[in-house]
Order: sequence, then structure tokens, then C-alpha cells
Amino acid sequence: MRKPNLAVLGATGVVGREILNIIDELKIDFNTIKFLSSAKSAGSEIEFQGKKYIVEEAKPESFDGVNIVLASAGGSTSQKFAPEIVKRGGVLIDNSSAFRMEENVPLVIAYVNDEDLRKHEGIIANPNCSTSQLMLVLKPLHEKFGIKRLIVSTYQAVSGAGLAAIKELRADTEANLKGEKFENVCFKKPISFNVIPQIDVFCDNGYTKEEMKVANETKKILHLPENTPISCTAARVPVFNGHSEAVDIEFEKEVTPDVVREILKNSFGVEVIDNPANFEYPTTRDASGKDPVYVGRIRKNLAFTNGISLWCVADNLRIGAALNTVRLCQKVIEMDLF
Amino acid sequence: MRKPNLAVLGATGVVGREILNIIDELKIDFNTIKFLSSAKSAGSEIEFQGKKYIVEEAKPESFDGVNIVLASAGGSTSQKFAPEIVKRGGVLIDNSSAFRMEENVPLVIAYVNDEDLRKHEGIIANPNCSTSQLMLVLKPLHEKFGIKRLIVSTYQAVSGAGLAAIKELRADTEANLKGEKFENVCFKKPISFNVIPQIDVFCDNGYTKEEMKVANETKKILHLPENTPISCTAARVPVFNGHSEAVDIEFEKEVTPDVVREILKNSFGVEVIDNPANFEYPTTRDASGKDPVYVGRIRKNLAFTNGISLWCVADNLRIGAALNTVRLCQKVIEMDLF
Repeated sequence: MRKPNLAVLGATGVVGREILNIIDELKIDFNTIKFLSSAKSAGSEIEFQGKKYIVEEAKPESFDGVNIVLASAGGSTSQKFAPEIVKRGGVLIDNSSAFRMEENVPLVIAYVNDEDLRKHEGIIANPNCSTSQLMLVLKPLHEKFGIKRLIVSTYQAVSGAGLAAIKELRADTEANLKGEKFENVCFKKPISFNVIPQIDVFCDNGYTKEEMKVANETKKILHLPENTPISCTAARVPVFNGHSEAVDIEFEKEVTPDVVREILKNSFGVEVIDNPANFEYPTTRDASGKDPVYVGRIRKNLAFTNGISLWCVADNLRIGAALNTVRLCQKVIEMDLF
Repeated sequence: MRKPNLAVLGATGVVGREILNIIDELKIDFNTIKFLSSAKSAGSEIEFQGKKYIVEEAKPESFDGVNIVLASAGGSTSQKFAPEIVKRGGVLIDNSSAFRMEENVPLVIAYVNDEDLRKHEGIIANPNCSTSQLMLVLKPLHEKFGIKRLIVSTYQAVSGAGLAAIKELRADTEANLKGEKFENVCFKKPISFNVIPQIDVFCDNGYTKEEMKVANETKKILHLPENTPISCTAARVPVFNGHSEAVDIEFEKEVTPDVVREILKNSFGVEVIDNPANFEYPTTRDASGKDPVYVGRIRKNLAFTNGISLWCVADNLRIGAALNTVRLCQKVIEMDLF
């Protein structure tokens, strides 16, 4: 296998840091690696695999000779550098939402729709966190029973909104416990001991972008018909890290909780914790820092004919961002697509 | 109007205290009032409307001459005293789940199905908190469009689990912020910065009792056919007070978000906060300490043909328990049913 020259764009952010850890964990075999960021964070030092690196300011020429760029620097940065990367023959694996729905950009969860990677023209998109954790669960069930209808309600951690949001939850909570006032900056409403039914901005149809991402990205990744009925409510909960989702699925074919449990127990990247009699089900904190998507509360949905309800928990920074980004890098190397 | 002799059973609990406040707020016109509790809490002093009362231990003879008992003392206490109250000609308005699904016990949300009160045989049941807030929202919509299918995901506060649970969320959160260990007692899992997909115990079908209450009580209150498809996921979030619910409704008739907004704006007990362009939607903390059920995020559901999704927030101790209990007492007096 050829070894690529890697660049990590947005190396100092919350997802960027996770990407570094996971490149190491998955033993990605590279030739060279460099760390890029905005001018603001450039110059800081990163220790990686026992060596020290200086973070460089990202410029077009930074991508000379780079084969694969793992980017988590926001949509506008990705949009700015994508043509520069592609022009130089590199492959951009992008965490932002900038290119996800573009026709010539594969939107891929590793081990779910790897074959779509072959269609890339220089840009590969990493799905949104709340979609990502669902895909590893839904793919094997869709293959067997056919998804007919999907309703998702999310319970999302603040880490998805970045380091500042994590700090804000802590500071807001501390102030609240002391009875002190606190002014929120990252969130439009108080986040301590509260639930906020808004993630990302609102679209014209009354849904947030986060909610529409779940609907649209799910259809693209699982190759579902455009008119597949999918609806989502996305809410922010006062949790540092880890997204939870209440998922209601209607299938084409007959299905039982036992069979679903059995299929998911044997699916890549999924771990079933489902013995309510013994209080065994996944909670958000169980998933933080871990790779699997945890699934529990698997039961017959009482509103659909062939329906299943389940509870799905994952580390949104890992499977929802960094882990899948690095897995995609691994696939691109293995499939020789750079 | 005749003035009743009142008794508050479970007067020292978290709901009991709210009941006292609301008897005062709603200016319930009574002849006498007494406060009853378990032996453990008996003897404590309560100040009410400027007078001091000693809480008495509840015994069968405590109910001699009492016309209306407002009870929030748990299922077994209600079961123990219900026959004693009824035998003495009193009416029990009960907050526990002990009698809710019994055929000869009206399960009532005031201003939703008041006429059912006329059928009482001495016991009137107050619905579960997560059902209660939904009913004021669904009733006017059901009348107009006919509920065909309902899916609810809840985000429930700890106050529903009592005073000890409120203290535990605080203590657990404080310990967590200091990096100290904490052993949970009220909850089976850590509650600080976590989401727990279990409220109440599990039934044989994999649902919790809390989830089945939403399905079964909704059907009873709105007089829906027994086979109406209703499914629920109930989760506990680290919030002190106030339940939030993501609600997906399929209707028989055509419906638009604008019409729903207009109907709910004119419905008793409901307040619409729904202007996402200006970040106006209800969050859990907005509802705590308030009477209305707040509704926002009203939009076309994307998974149902005649579907509406909405976000519904309320103070679970008030509308979900104490406020409705006292409103029921008010209705029983007005309708001369004691």
C-alpha cells in the first residue's frame, strides 16, 4: 500500500485534537504529516507520536504535495481551500456541511457505504454527527427489512458546538449552583439545567439545519428514495459529550425486537446494551470517549405496523466526526483512492 | 356554592407543597382544611394563608367529615386510604397512578374532559405529568383534525422523582464539576450531565410504565379508540424542573402549522411561543414556576401525510400534578360533585 502525505486542517479545534488521537489509535500509516490552522492558532506546538510539530497557518501552498487532507475547520475554510487541495491532486476529507449534499461528493460512513468513495472527484464529506451514529445502526436493519419511515428525536451534547460551548456549560452550571447570573454567548438561551430545541440555524420550513441534515444525509448515505418520510427534532441538553437519540422506525417487512437485537449484536461499530430488567441500557456518559454506537431499549414501536423503537448513544466527537474522518482516510488508503 | 372541608394528604412532599400554594392562588373557597402525612412527617408545622397548622398522621378517622381529599402521597398510601375516604362520603382527588386506569375512576385534565367528572364514584384520578401537559395541547387539535397516530419523546426533569432527586442532581453536579466521585441513590445511573432512558419501572413489553402511561392515559382522557397507535420514549435529563416533549402527530384531516398556531393561541392553558427567526421558542427553564403549557417549533411533520411536529414545555409539578389537582378540586366544587 502507498503511504500518503497527510495534513490535518483545523488541528487545534476540539475535533482536530480527536483526529490526532485516532490517527495514532488506528495506526494510520503515512509518509509525512502536517498540522494547519487559521492564522490565530498558527505557531502553537503539537506533540504527536512523540514528536513536536509547529502548527502552520493554512495557505494554498500549504497543500503542495499533500495527498489527503483531514479537515475540521468549518464550512467557509473548507470552501476556501477545497479547490486549492483538489487542484494540487489532494483528496479532502471534510467534516463541514459545505459539500455534503453536492452530487459529485460522496457522503460516507466507513463500513456503511464505502463503495461510494470510488466516485469521489477530490472531495469526500463526513456526515453530520447526529446522522453518523444512526447510520451504523440503520444500515444493517435497512438491508434486511427496508426502511419505510423514520422519526428521530435527539438529545445532543454541547461538545458538538466546540470548546467554547463546553466551557460555557461548565461556567453556566457553576454560576447557577451558586445562584449567580450568567450571560450565555455560545447558546441563545441558558444551557445549564435546561433543554434548548434549537441546533444550528432555522430553515424556511420551520426546521433547523441540524434536523434537515438528519433527513437529507440519511437518504443520501442509505440510498433511500428522495420522498422517504423522515422527520427529526434536534434538542440541546446540558451534557458535555455524547449524543443520544430516540429513534422510531417503520420497516417494509415484518420485524421483531429479538431479530433486531441479534442483527445489531453482529454489526460493525455497534454494541448492544439491552437488558432493562437489570437496568442495562446505554446512557450518554457511557459512550463518551468510546468508539461504538451503543444501542438499547430495542422494542416494538406501538405506533407503526412493522415498527421498532430504540435508544442510540454515541460519542459525537468520535463516531460523529473524528473517528469516521480517520476511518475514511484509512479506507481511501486501503482502496487506493488518493 | 357549598364550601367543602378539605384535606391535603402528603402535604409535606414536593407536590403537596405546590398544592398548598395553588389552593391559595386559585382562591379555593373551603370551610375547613387539614394537612395529613405519614407518621414520619407528622408533627411538622405548616403556615398557610397566615395561619399555622400541625401536620397530622393520616389515619382512617382523619377523614371523618372531610369532603374532598387532595392526595399526593404515593400509590400505596392512596390505595390504603381510598376506601376509608369513600366510605365516609368524601371524594379523593388522587395524584398517584393507583386508580388511573380503573373503569369507574374518571381520569381528568381540567378544561379538557371535565364532563367525565360526573361519573365519579368517590375517586378522581389526576393523570401522569408527561401526559397532562400534552392533553391541553392535543385536545383542541383532536377536536378539529382527529388524532390518527402519535409519537412522543420526553425530556423529563428530576423534580418528578421528588425532593431527594432534586438534591441528588445538585450534589451529583457539584461533585462532577470538582472531579469527585458520587454515588447515585435516586437514579440507577449518574444524572449529572447525562441522559437516562428510564423513568419508572419496566413492563414486559420493553416499555417503561412512564411510557405506557402516556399511551394509555392519552387514550382514556381524549376518548380515543383503544387501538389508536401511540408510542413514547421517556428519558430523564439533568434539569431541575420542567418537562419538555418532542411531539409528532398524524391527523385524520388536512392541517397546517398556521392553523394549529391559531387554534393553540386561543386554547385554555396553552401559550404559543413560536417565532424561530427571532429565537423565540420555549425552553424548559421558561416554564418552571408557570401555569401554561408552552408550545413552539410548530411545523409540518415530514414523515406523516397530515402531520404536525411541535415542542411542548411545562412545569411538571404544576400542570403535571399540583395545578391540575387543585383545578379538579375547583371543578368538583363548581359542578357540585362532592
